[in-house]
Amino acid sequence: MTATETGFGFKAAWYVAATSAEVTDRPLPRTVLGVPLVLFRTREGVGALLDRCPHRGVPLSLGFVKGGALHCGYHGWSFDTGGACTAVPGLLDPTPNPARCVTGYPVREQQGHVWVWMDPTQEPVGEPFTFRLADAPGYLTVRKQLDAPGGLLAVAENALDVPHTPFVHAGLFRSEGDRNEITCVIERTRDRVEVEYIGEPRPEGIVARILSPSGGIVTHFDRFYLPCIVEVEYRIGEENHIVLNAACTPVTPDSTRLYAVVSVRSRVPTWLVRPIVQPAALYIFSQDVKILGEQTRMAATFGDRYVSTEIDLLGPHIARLLHRAERGELDQLDEPYRREVRMMV
Amino acid sequence: MTATETGFGFKAAWYVAATSAEVTDRPLPRTVLGVPLVLFRTREGVGALLDRCPHRGVPLSLGFVKGGALHCGYHGWSFDTGGACTAVPGLLDPTPNPARCVTGYPVREQQGHVWVWMDPTQEPVGEPFTFRLADAPGYLTVRKQLDAPGGLLAVAENALDVPHTPFVHAGLFRSEGDRNEITCVIERTRDRVEVEYIGEPRPEGIVARILSPSGGIVTHFDRFYLPCIVEVEYRIGEENHIVLNAACTPVTPDSTRLYAVVSVRSRVPTWLVRPIVQPAALYIFSQDVKILGEQTRMAATFGDRYVSTEIDLLGPHIARLLHRAERGELDQLDEPYRREVRMMV
Amino acid sequence: MTATETGFGFKAAWYVAATSAEVTDRPLPRTVLGVPLVLFRTREGVGALLDRCPHRGVPLSLGFVKGGALHCGYHGWSFDTGGACTAVPGLLDPTPNPARCVTGYPVREQQGHVWVWMDPTQEPVGEPFTFRLADAPGYLTVRKQLDAPGGLLAVAENALDVPHTPFVHAGLFRSEGDRNEITCVIERTRDRVEVEYIGEPRPEGIVARILSPSGGIVTHFDRFYLPCIVEVEYRIGEENHIVLNAACTPVTPDSTRLYAVVSVRSRVPTWLVRPIVQPAALYIFSQDVKILGEQTRMAATFGDRYVSTEIDLLGPHIARLLHRAERGELDQLDEPYRREVRMMV
Repeated sequence: MTATETGFGFKAAWYVAATSAEVTDRPLPRTVLGVPLVLFRTREGVGALLDRCPHRGVPLSLGFVKGGALHCGYHGWSFDTGGACTAVPGLLDPTPNPARCVTGYPVREQQGHVWVWMDPTQEPVGEPFTFRLADAPGYLTVRKQLDAPGGLLAVAENALDVPHTPFVHAGLFRSEGDRNEITCVIERTRDRVEVEYIGEPRPEGIVARILSPSGGIVTHFDRFYLPCIVEVEYRIGEENHIVLNAACTPVTPDSTRLYAVVSVRSRVPTWLVRPIVQPAALYIFSQDVKILGEQTRMAATFGDRYVSTEIDLLGPHIARLLHRAERGELDQLDEPYRREVRMMV
Repeated sequence: MTATETGFGFKAAWYVAATSAEVTDRPLPRTVLGVPLVLFRTREGVGALLDRCPHRGVPLSLGFVKGGALHCGYHGWSFDTGGACTAVPGLLDPTPNPARCVTGYPVREQQGHVWVWMDPTQEPVGEPFTFRLADAPGYLTVRKQLDAPGGLLAVAENALDVPHTPFVHAGLFRSEGDRNEITCVIERTRDRVEVEYIGEPRPEGIVARILSPSGGIVTHFDRFYLPCIVEVEYRIGEENHIVLNAACTPVTPDSTRLYAVVSVRSRVPTWLVRPIVQPAALYIFSQDVKILGEQTRMAATFGDRYVSTEIDLLGPHIARLLHRAERGELDQLDEPYRREVRMMV
Repeated sequence: MTATETGFGFKAAWYVAATSAEVTDRPLPRTVLGVPLVLFRTREGVGALLDRCPHRGVPLSLGFVKGGALHCGYHGWSFDTGGACTAVPGLLDPTPNPARCVTGYPVREQQGHVWVWMDPTQEPVGEPFTFRLADAPGYLTVRKQLDAPGGLLAVAENALDVPHTPFVHAGLFRSEGDRNEITCVIERTRDRVEVEYIGEPRPEGIVARILSPSGGIVTHFDRFYLPCIVEVEYRIGEENHIVLNAACTPVTPDSTRLYAVVSVRSRVPTWLVRPIVQPAALYIFSQDVKILGEQTRMAATFGDRYVSTEIDLLGPHIARLLHRAERGELDQLDEPYRREVRMMV
C-alpha cells in the first residue's frame, strides 16, 4: 500500500506533534507521517528535527539539551532549533559544514499544541487550524490524547460516521428499534466536507440524556477539514452546545494519534459533566478502537477497496479530499458538491 | 514459496472447517487454505462465507446471527447463508445490489464434520471423504482436533512415516536395536497412494503391547487420499483392528489442522483403552509437533528441496499427487505405479 | 541491505564459533555470517557442519553424537565430522551417496577457541588470529562472550572509538570539561589499520585510576585486523599494561558476538582487579549495547550512509578494509596510508 492510495496523509500541511506541555528541555521523540521527529524547547523556542544524528544515525532524542542546543548522546554533536550543527566535540577545525546538519521542520505553538509543517522542502502555506471554542467563555473544554489503530482516512470516517453507532455503541447513542427518516445535506468545497442532519430527534442514548435532559430541537453537523481535522457539533435546545474536535495526526499508515479538544456548554453543571462524560467518551472510543483495529488488520491482507452506499455520507468525500491533496491537486478547481440524502437514523 | 511448489493444497476440493458441534448461531472464524472463513448456523443450515464484510472490511465473525442472517458488527449489514446481502440498516432504497454480497462456499455436514468446498468459482465435484468405521458396531471411535506446525505435505508424510518412529518416538513403537527386514508394497493411483507392510512383527513398543497383549499376525497399511486424508490401519491377530484417520486441513502454508477420527476394536476393554491410549497419542503427537516445527522453520530459510531414499515410501508420492492436483492435472492419465521395497524396521 | 554494503563480513576467513569448552558430544547450534552451524566433538576432533539434515531439513543440533558420528533426531541419518553421511537407518543398500552429505567447514582449535573457516568452497588460507598475551607470564587473562546488537562494522568502530567515551560512558574514562590536544597517527596496510595516540594524559575516569593509581606516561594504540579482530592496548607508566582483544563474529547483519580476551599486567593485585574491573567492563559494554541497538534500529529504516569527520579515526578505514575484502580485492595493491590528525581528548 502506498500513502497516495490509502489516505495516509500528505506532507505540505500542519500537524499536531505534541501538546505544549510535553515539549520541554528533555528531548521528546514523536512520529508524524512515518517520520521520526525529536521535539525540544530552548530559550529561542521549540525545535522539531528529524530524530537521527547524521553522524552515526542514532536518535537525537536519546541526547540532551544544553546551552540552547540539542546534543547527540553518542558523540555529542550539537544542533540548534533549525537543525544546523553547532559543534563536534574533539574536532579542532571550527568551520561549519552543512553536510553535518539535520533536517528541521517549521513549528507553530498555538492553543496549547505544537504544530509541525511536515514538508521541509517548501515554506509553510497558511497557519494551523484554530479550535473555535477552546478559549470561549461559558464553555468547558477538555483535551485528550488518544491513539487509534488505523490510518487517517479510516479513523476520520469512523469519527464522523452515524450509521455505526447503533451497532458498535449499542445503547449509548441510538437504538436499532425506533428509527426516523431524516434529511442529510452534504456540502464539499476545496478543502472540507460537511453534513447537516435535518429533522434528527434528540438521540435516545444515555449520553444525550445526560447532556440534555430536557430535550429540544437538535442541530447536528459533522465536518472534516484538510489535512486532518474532524468536528462533530451538536446543539440540543437553547442551552446545550457541544463541539468535538480532533486533530488526527497520521503516525504510520496504520496508526493515528488524535489530539481531541471537546468544548461543552450545558445547563448540567461542570462538576457533573466531567466525571460522567469523560469515562463514557473513553469507553465509546475503546469500542471504535476495537473495530478500527480489525479493519486495519484485514486491510493488510485484502486492501482497502470497499463497497459504499449513499448513507456513507462522509467517508468517500474525505477520501477524495485526501487523495487530491496527496496528488498535489488541491489548487486545481474541483466541482462544487451539494447533495441531499434521505436516511433512517 | 508458492502454494504450487509446497504441497500447500488445492482449492477444488472438500476440507473440514470445523466439527458440527462447533458451528452454532455464534459466528465461528476459521482459516482454510489461507482463506479466513466465518461459519454460522441458521434454521436453513450452515453458512461458510469469506470472513470480511464488503462494506469496510471488518471480519463478519465479530458480528451476530439474527433472523436467519449473519450481521456485521460495524454497520449491521446482513447476509444469508449463501452470502447475499439482505439488508443495509439506515438505507431507504431496498433494491438488492450484488456488489454488496460476500463470497459464499458450498457446505456439507457429514459424520459430525462441516466440510467446505474451497473453490467458489466452480460447482463441487464429488462428496467429502467418509470415515469407514466411525459409525461401525463393535468399534470405539475417538475424535480429536490437533494443530500441527507444518504444511499439508510435511504433516501427511510425517503421519504415515515409519522410519522416524525409533528416533522421534523412541521406545513407544519400535526400537533401534532389533530390526527385521520386511517387504513394502507401494501402489499409487490417480488420487491416492498406499503402502502395505508385509512380514512386520508386532511392534515392540508399549502402545502396541497394550492394544494387543497376545500378539499375532500383523497387517499394516498406510494410505493417503487426495486432497488431505491420512489413514493408518493395523490388524494384529484376529480381534484387534485400529484405523487412524485424519482429515488434514491446510490452514496456512505452515500450519495444518488435523481432524482425527480413530476407530478401535480390541479385546482390551474400552474403559482401559481410553485413559491410556489418548494420553499416549497426544504425547506422541507432541513429539511430532516439535520436529515438524523445526522442519517448517528451516524451510522458511532453506526451502523444501529434500534428499529422499527408497525407504521414504510415501512422501514423494504424496508430493506428486498434490502437485498434480495443484497444477489441475488430476484428470490427465498418470502412469500406474506399483513397486516393492525391502526395508529394515 | 546487502552484505557487501554493510560491512557484514566475508566468507573466506576464520571466525570464532564457540569456546573449546562449549563444544562437547552434545551438539551445539551457532550462527556465523548468517549460516546456522552445528558444532560437535568426537574422538577424531571437532566437526562444524551446516545445521540442516539434507533429508528433511531438520536442524542436526537437535540430534545426538554416538559412535563418532552426529545423528539426526528425525530419522537417524548420521554424519562424520567432515559432513559425509555414514548411515541411513532402515535402508538396506549400503552404497554411500554424496547427495546425502551435509556441508562441512574447516575447523581449528586454538587458545581455547573453536575457529571455523566460513567458505566451504575454498581451502583455508592462513591460520586464525593469535591473542598475543593470552598465555604470557605475569598477565591476568580474562575471557568473556558478549552479544552486541549491531553489524561487524558498527561494533568494531564503537569498540575502538575514543570520542564517544565522554558521552556514552560519562565519568568512566574521560570527562567533557578538561580536554587536551593530542596527535593521532593512523596507519593502514592491506589487512589492518592502527592508530597511535601521542601525548594523551592518563584518562581521568575511575577505571584508569584503579588500574594505574600512580599515573605515568601513556602509550595507547587502537587496532583492527581483518576479518574481525579489535585490539585496544594501553601502557600507563612502567608497570601497567592492558590489551583488550575481541574476535567479533558476525552472527547476522544486525548482531555480532564478541569473544573478548583481556590481558592485564598491573601493580594492583589480581584479587583487587578482578572484582572491580569485570563488573565495570560489563557496565561499560551495556552502555555501548544500548547505543549500538539504536544505531542498528535506525539503519533498518535510513540505511548506513553516515557523515564522518577527520576524528572518526578508524571507522572509515575499517569500512574500507571490509568492503575490499567483501569484493574479493584483498590481494590487489592498496595505496599505503599514513596520516597525522590533531584532536582534543
